[in-house]
Amino acid sequence: METRILGASDLAILVDRVGRDALMDRMIEALRERFAGHDAELVDARPRAGFRYDKPALGLVEWMPTHEVGGPVVIKMVGYHPTNPTQRSLPSVLATSSMWDTETGHLLAISDSTLLTALRTGAASGLATDLMAIDTPITVGMIGLGAQAVTQLHAISRVRTVQRVVGYDPSPEPADSFADRIAFLGLPFDPCPEGGLESMAAEVDVLVTCTSIDIGAGPVVGDFEPRPWLHVNAVGADFPGKLELPTSLLESALVIPDTLEQCLLEGECQQVPAHRIGPDLFEVVQAEETTKEKAQVTVFDSTGWAVEDDVALRVMLELADEHDVGRRLQLESIPRDPYDPYGEVR
Amino acid sequence: METRILGASDLAILVDRVGRDALMDRMIEALRERFAGHDAELVDARPRAGFRYDKPALGLVEWMPTHEVGGPVVIKMVGYHPTNPTQRSLPSVLATSSMWDTETGHLLAISDSTLLTALRTGAASGLATDLMAIDTPITVGMIGLGAQAVTQLHAISRVRTVQRVVGYDPSPEPADSFADRIAFLGLPFDPCPEGGLESMAAEVDVLVTCTSIDIGAGPVVGDFEPRPWLHVNAVGADFPGKLELPTSLLESALVIPDTLEQCLLEGECQQVPAHRIGPDLFEVVQAEETTKEKAQVTVFDSTGWAVEDDVALRVMLELADEHDVGRRLQLESIPRDPYDPYGEVR
Repeated sequence: METRILGASDLAILVDRVGRDALMDRMIEALRERFAGHDAELVDARPRAGFRYDKPALGLVEWMPTHEVGGPVVIKMVGYHPTNPTQRSLPSVLATSSMWDTETGHLLAISDSTLLTALRTGAASGLATDLMAIDTPITVGMIGLGAQAVTQLHAISRVRTVQRVVGYDPSPEPADSFADRIAFLGLPFDPCPEGGLESMAAEVDVLVTCTSIDIGAGPVVGDFEPRPWLHVNAVGADFPGKLELPTSLLESALVIPDTLEQCLLEGECQQVPAHRIGPDLFEVVQAEETTKEKAQVTVFDSTGWAVEDDVALRVMLELADEHDVGRRLQLESIPRDPYDPYGEVR
Repeated sequence: METRILGASDLAILVDRVGRDALMDRMIEALRERFAGHDAELVDARPRAGFRYDKPALGLVEWMPTHEVGGPVVIKMVGYHPTNPTQRSLPSVLATSSMWDTETGHLLAISDSTLLTALRTGAASGLATDLMAIDTPITVGMIGLGAQAVTQLHAISRVRTVQRVVGYDPSPEPADSFADRIAFLGLPFDPCPEGGLESMAAEVDVLVTCTSIDIGAGPVVGDFEPRPWLHVNAVGADFPGKLELPTSLLESALVIPDTLEQCLLEGECQQVPAHRIGPDLFEVVQAEETTKEKAQVTVFDSTGWAVEDDVALRVMLELADEHDVGRRLQLESIPRDPYDPYGEVR
């Protein structure tokens, strides 16, 4: 009754052996497959809940539990501390995922989920982009050039030919280093000039917003005239009052939530009239016809869904099996006599 | 930024080095101290929530989060699968506790909490018994002789002189082995004759109920005439509809919840008129005068409080420090560049 552990070095080995592209492709396809078979009656994915504190900087520690009937329970624990990168040289998001057997309550596995969160958030946008962006070589606009931006662009580059990337971050450090961090993609990148955000947004085919904007301080981009087929992956909004997009854009767009209940609380859907909110992303996957009309702006409202974390953990555990990576630990005190807590442990 | 791990063998070493009695004493005193200083305004201890399933046997995987302002977040994850002992030779309760730093979101520690749950549940009853049981040599009655019964009796034996123990379990296996499992306490134990439960309950000074009775099947003991100073530790009720005590007893008793909000949902308080529910256990600790009147039946309604799990984990981490036990693991993927999820990890 050991617990499988996937730590930082295990995941680094897996990324190395599998390769970034194959890993992202597998994550996108695993999401597509899971969404295609998703039955809301059989999955109990709870909206994110947690502790928020301000001391004085905002911090959150949250849990994202999900249970598929007949399958395991998976919970991601995620910390969000937006001052981490500038003040402590740590990612703003630190996370771990765990999986429990529902026959016994045994903890099957624990994995880092810092990398997994970046991968699955990218993969979800990749899937949404594949389903809704124009199917020609595209220009991608990035607002927010931190850790999530890397996997966002990577995932988009796996489903479309990207001919140009333009991007902006209000902080100089991520803005300066973004070109280096995406060098492995081999894409031409131009920083967006200060004050040129709305012009940039008006010229791109796919826009990604993934900033750490303060609660109540949004939107990050003002009103602009989008291309008629623009697709937006709105990734940053994940807390009540945290918003990135201008109301004007949302009013004219078809908005696709990752999971409606949570998006209404924490996503761009906070500012979208109910009649304008479209199907969930999994419903778009399941639709036999294309959901998007020929000239229609679409917004994928990505707050991060517990089901995506479940998928990401399963993919990594499968890969760990395939490549014989990871370790096992007798974490739980399981006595030989189940009625004797002080008894000799197994 | 490693994560401390306390696994089964680490805890076994600690129990061995510290000794069962000193460990239980420390747990009781740590609870007493934490309750004495408890300020409900500064602690956000969430009621237990989780997934319940019947396939066909009942199973639960639940989370118990708590955050003390200025301190870490602690979450216990607990599985309850009452058929585990008879069908799989596993404890019905399997649990792990984890602690997060609220400056960064870093996962500080993971520990087994199967043993910790048994210890802290015992210690809470020990504390309640110390505060409310008659202060003479006592006879203890035990209903339910499984894993929790061992630490219940152990804790009670640390705060009172126990002159006799009588006990009952509907299952033959725990009933037969209980004497062996409590042999380390050196107390005379008599099994309760079949059908003699109410007579037994009427003759004891302290009664403990810690059964796995089915939801809706309670109470486990019928009406009886208690000694006027009887103190009861009601431990088994921890889910809506799961009840162990007869209404008649609760109607005449002062009922002390471990945490009111949760007890109203899951504990014996489900069947107690509001005006009969007394102060929480921490308020009894804080009261300057004895809460109990000279001739008054008291019931400690122990559903298991997240704050107790927080205390238990802190005690074990302190002991691990003192005895240099446990291991450390780089679990989280923390890249050297916080903006590069694919970057070289630390």
